[in-house]
Amino acid sequence: MKKISTESYKGVRDFYPKDWMIQKYIFQKMSQACELFGYLEYNASPLEPTELFLAKSGSEIIQNETYNLKDRADREITLRPEMTPTLARLIAGKKTDLQMPIRFFSIPNLFRYEKPQKGRLREHYQLNADIFGTSGIEAEIEILFLVDKIMKNFGAKKEDYVIKINNRKILNSFFQKFSLTQEKVYEISKIIDKKEKIGKEKFEESLEKFLKDEQIIELNNFFSKKDNNYLRENYKEDFEKLEKIIESCKKNGIENIVFDFSLTRGFDYYTDFVFEIFDTDPENNRSMAGGGRYDDLLDIFGQEKIPAVGFGMGDVTMREFLISRNLIPEDLSKTKILIAVLEEKFLEDANFLAKKLRDQQINTEIDFTFRKIFRQINSAEKKGVENILIFGESEKNNEIYNIKNLKTQKEERGLNFENLLEKLKV
Amino acid sequence: MKKISTESYKGVRDFYPKDWMIQKYIFQKMSQACELFGYLEYNASPLEPTELFLAKSGSEIIQNETYNLKDRADREITLRPEMTPTLARLIAGKKTDLQMPIRFFSIPNLFRYEKPQKGRLREHYQLNADIFGTSGIEAEIEILFLVDKIMKNFGAKKEDYVIKINNRKILNSFFQKFSLTQEKVYEISKIIDKKEKIGKEKFEESLEKFLKDEQIIELNNFFSKKDNNYLRENYKEDFEKLEKIIESCKKNGIENIVFDFSLTRGFDYYTDFVFEIFDTDPENNRSMAGGGRYDDLLDIFGQEKIPAVGFGMGDVTMREFLISRNLIPEDLSKTKILIAVLEEKFLEDANFLAKKLRDQQINTEIDFTFRKIFRQINSAEKKGVENILIFGESEKNNEIYNIKNLKTQKEERGLNFENLLEKLKV
Repeated sequence: MKKISTESYKGVRDFYPKDWMIQKYIFQKMSQACELFGYLEYNASPLEPTELFLAKSGSEIIQNETYNLKDRADREITLRPEMTPTLARLIAGKKTDLQMPIRFFSIPNLFRYEKPQKGRLREHYQLNADIFGTSGIEAEIEILFLVDKIMKNFGAKKEDYVIKINNRKILNSFFQKFSLTQEKVYEISKIIDKKEKIGKEKFEESLEKFLKDEQIIELNNFFSKKDNNYLRENYKEDFEKLEKIIESCKKNGIENIVFDFSLTRGFDYYTDFVFEIFDTDPENNRSMAGGGRYDDLLDIFGQEKIPAVGFGMGDVTMREFLISRNLIPEDLSKTKILIAVLEEKFLEDANFLAKKLRDQQINTEIDFTFRKIFRQINSAEKKGVENILIFGESEKNNEIYNIKNLKTQKEERGLNFENLLEKLKV
Repeated sequence: MKKISTESYKGVRDFYPKDWMIQKYIFQKMSQACELFGYLEYNASPLEPTELFLAKSGSEIIQNETYNLKDRADREITLRPEMTPTLARLIAGKKTDLQMPIRFFSIPNLFRYEKPQKGRLREHYQLNADIFGTSGIEAEIEILFLVDKIMKNFGAKKEDYVIKINNRKILNSFFQKFSLTQEKVYEISKIIDKKEKIGKEKFEESLEKFLKDEQIIELNNFFSKKDNNYLRENYKEDFEKLEKIIESCKKNGIENIVFDFSLTRGFDYYTDFVFEIFDTDPENNRSMAGGGRYDDLLDIFGQEKIPAVGFGMGDVTMREFLISRNLIPEDLSKTKILIAVLEEKFLEDANFLAKKLRDQQINTEIDFTFRKIFRQINSAEKKGVENILIFGESEKNNEIYNIKNLKTQKEERGLNFENLLEKLKV
């Protein structure tokens, strides 16, 4: 028989328990914060009809960056590269049944055909949280409260990240004077979005394809306008909205929020407010979450618009951020105690003790390899189990137990079942 | 623009929050029980190299029942139809690092190209729990304890389900006298597995392809041997193992366990002990979980065997079982309170109250649609929110609140923030 490789498919991750514990921790902190704000969790299959993504993303992305297949009835299917089209499909499908404002979240796995490199995998998880049915800035403000709550839930300090906000309409108004096609504005927006990353020279070079020299100069001048009065005069409504959002955030203890006129976000369905959260680490200015207002998405289903604000937050950069800031708790193991059984003849009674502990909701593993005791202890330590109890003649006969905490090495001796339970329930 | 359908891809499910709450409840009960026994959760991508499934399942299944695709580098990928090959790959990949006995569980989504019909979807979730490294019946017994604990965790009573066990070796020994090829034995096993479902006539008809008439008679005779002495004499070792397993289960409060010599399980990697859990509903004798011992799976990676016992438990039949037995709790909503804001001018203060509640871990939604109050209450009820608080002039000025429980219609009036918190923390 041909020997098969133990490697995963290229660009996706295997999650052994020690890794999955961390993933679960990240998902749990995200979910908890969403639930604190009354957001309800939804889900769907990663398999979607290809047409769902063609409508907004354009066929180029579908052909080059997604996983597509045909089923045996020749239906075209795509492994979802993002969740928002699925969410829009769900909302459009039950619009009359759902209660406004709709607050939904999900942590789906998403698939993109990428060249594997640091932080860019072919499958990753992403929190998506969205509010539908509110056109006022209450929605923007709540979304910012929520995203900030997630960061604080993870133990991040305000110096660790910065929230940058912008309004796409300002840039769009500015571009009107150049009379560009919508496609060109979109391409230019993507270049602007990478401005910080690629540097001034590369930035100007990339723009040459779309803009004349004098337009590039004008655009640069525009970006250097740090003068709020200028913006307030020329883009009154949109700018004041941003000012109000910032004011409300600051009043509620979110101080690390700033304007950034070069922020555009790569997606084309944001129509208005956009935001992004960046790591403040000067060595690694990664983007950890981003979103904005998108009011037009339901029109692909031939339905009336519903105003919406939402964001995405990926697991990969979040995990890197948490590791770099030392914010992942050391002990995520859920096994409270391991009963190491000395000989086979004690197994039945050891099993009975395990049953009694489990009946009291104590997570209890039993080692019935009957190996030398130091090997059993060693193995329990490596698994991350919290306490160990050695079960032999005396435990069987007297029902009095000794336990040792494997983290602190502290022992508790001479415990009857009630005492044992008490110690383990702490 | 072409109007797009709001339907999902055929045969997969959309999970709106009310459905996903039930899924999460099912997953949580399964996970809790696994963790009670010290099982650690793992995960992997649904994308796997196709060769992983070819080794054991045979190319026919891969060609006809799975979703396959090629990536842009011509790698053949399959959406996993089952988890055990992935699990074996993970174990084989880190065998020296992992601590024996290895106790792992996962609740993956699995994909099969099926004609959609009741209970047979193209994507479903399945709990997989496995123990590696123990060749004694301690492993079988623990797996049965675990699966029974899950059923009890769901609130199932012993009359609601029956655990059937068998040892494949008995049937294999019996078949030796017929000198059949391994393929034929496998095909016959699959027919035997459907015996109850298809009825005696269809059963014998299906066997004619593989067995002579006198062999069919002999097989029928074998199945009618309810005489344990006959089995004990002829299949001593294997039969006594089953008797010991049953004895140990009964001692530990699992009474609904029986032998069933016609039980074979459809999969070809079980080598020894097999079991299956059936709903006892005479109208719907569905199978809810099944598993067994499979000691050979690591050999596809060119590695030494590790003894293993495991099982799978699907979400679809479990959900149907729980619904039919009325075992799904009515209130799975996580939103504790909704603050209905009367007018925009109260929003800032209402937001501040929401913030204070969230800081105390109270899940708090805020309705800022400023609709008529009865509409806000109506909407909160439909969302399944537990309590409602109406926020207006008096709440803003006096910081004294009234809440109403939307389930019981009970009101609590004149609460200051401390009282409010106390009521909501119950």
